[in-house]
Amino acid sequence: MSILEQLAIDTAVVREAIVRFIHDEVTQSGHRRALLGLSGGIDSALAAYLAVEALGRENVLALLMPYRSSNPSSEADARLVLDELGIPHRLCPITPMVDAFIALDPGMDARRQGNLMSRCRMVISYDQSVPFGGLVLGTSNKSEILLGYFTLYGDSAAALRPLANLYKCQLRQLARAVGVPERIVAKAPSADLWEDQTDEGELGFTYDEADQILFLHVDRGYDEGRIVAAGFAPELVQRVLRRLRVSAFKRAEPPCAIW
Amino acid sequence: MSILEQLAIDTAVVREAIVRFIHDEVTQSGHRRALLGLSGGIDSALAAYLAVEALGRENVLALLMPYRSSNPSSEADARLVLDELGIPHRLCPITPMVDAFIALDPGMDARRQGNLMSRCRMVISYDQSVPFGGLVLGTSNKSEILLGYFTLYGDSAAALRPLANLYKCQLRQLARAVGVPERIVAKAPSADLWEDQTDEGELGFTYDEADQILFLHVDRGYDEGRIVAAGFAPELVQRVLRRLRVSAFKRAEPPCAIW
Repeated sequence: MSILEQLAIDTAVVREAIVRFIHDEVTQSGHRRALLGLSGGIDSALAAYLAVEALGRENVLALLMPYRSSNPSSEADARLVLDELGIPHRLCPITPMVDAFIALDPGMDARRQGNLMSRCRMVISYDQSVPFGGLVLGTSNKSEILLGYFTLYGDSAAALRPLANLYKCQLRQLARAVGVPERIVAKAPSADLWEDQTDEGELGFTYDEADQILFLHVDRGYDEGRIVAAGFAPELVQRVLRRLRVSAFKRAEPPCAIW
Repeated sequence: MSILEQLAIDTAVVREAIVRFIHDEVTQSGHRRALLGLSGGIDSALAAYLAVEALGRENVLALLMPYRSSNPSSEADARLVLDELGIPHRLCPITPMVDAFIALDPGMDARRQGNLMSRCRMVISYDQSVPFGGLVLGTSNKSEILLGYFTLYGDSAAALRPLANLYKCQLRQLARAVGVPERIVAKAPSADLWEDQTDEGELGFTYDEADQILFLHVDRGYDEGRIVAAGFAPELVQRVLRRLRVSAFKRAEPPCAIW
């Protein structure tokens, strides 16, 4: 059985488990509602579909938070999800806030600007959770988390993380099973923080490559040599495992001084 | 020995431990520098003093981040620390960013505004950590953490937490020992998020009261009845322990769905 075949999930089981998880976490915290930023990408689309199953459509608020440079097709894809699910939404453009931060250092590079956008979306999500009376739903997946491909205190900030145990390839499988529009499932993943940014272009490898290597290392305990022996290019394996290693601090609680 | 006497620390031991902790955490992560928001309060003042001992004055950047409504005496107290320590600083008023967020819901209450201020300071601190090339130093103390008296992804966000094992009364003792100006040590603690806000007014009890009750419960394992028997008013004990209980989610990692 190929490694990608080993990664395949039983979508009925996982779907039910995640829906129950969202329902139980939200209700046990004394809430009935949840909200999330809907980017037009597959992760937040899938989270929205599962949240609607768990809580009912009127109890899921979608925030659309475009920046001036965001690709208009992202908002169009987000609106496709809104139309399919019939959930309430609010449009909160982040351009005024982000530009006020950028004005502190007008020459900053795209990476800093991208982190500012991600954190401004976190700030709005947490602020809007108050009048809506709901929990902030995270959309991080296992691939992003292990690769450190997220903004600390930005897109990774959430009250619960329904997708955190799904590799990107598994998430794609589940998204198709729950009926996320194929246009959203099939497009190249992108944080859309600057023009023509794609996750895989920035990472330097595909999610299918990373998922298999991470699965062998993290879930199966293979060391680098054994992964290479399984048929992956040494340089690719090193690049993936290096990202895992150098991003450890982003997954750890900040250390506290003791004596 | 009274409970407050039991809470007394050996300031020489704790000072050395925290200074070593800051030095080791910063250097082991491949950095030489750290930065922090300097509010004019005791916590960030003490953190700045200890960071200077650990890293040298040129390697500690202080960010002054007043909001329009911030008490001018807060900035004056922060500048007193700057003068004493001779560290580099940058003034980054948060009024433009905070007001851009408030404009989304102009009628929002003071608590939401306060959380926006705290999170905008986090965003600036993390952004400024890039050009400065340093780690963001947290200033949360054990009392605040256990009472949940902080903004999630705001003032609690940091790369390391040098003061997290000090109750407020212990932190005050250490601050005096390292020479934090008495004006700063003696003033009423305040998040200064709105006029006349004080921590103790908002909490409904003093830090000395909370520290003793938390110490008996968390560090000594006393239940509610035993704390009351030790001489504390039942209603006070309930109020403190209630805050500990309802803020548990702010100290926990967000749960992830599993199956």
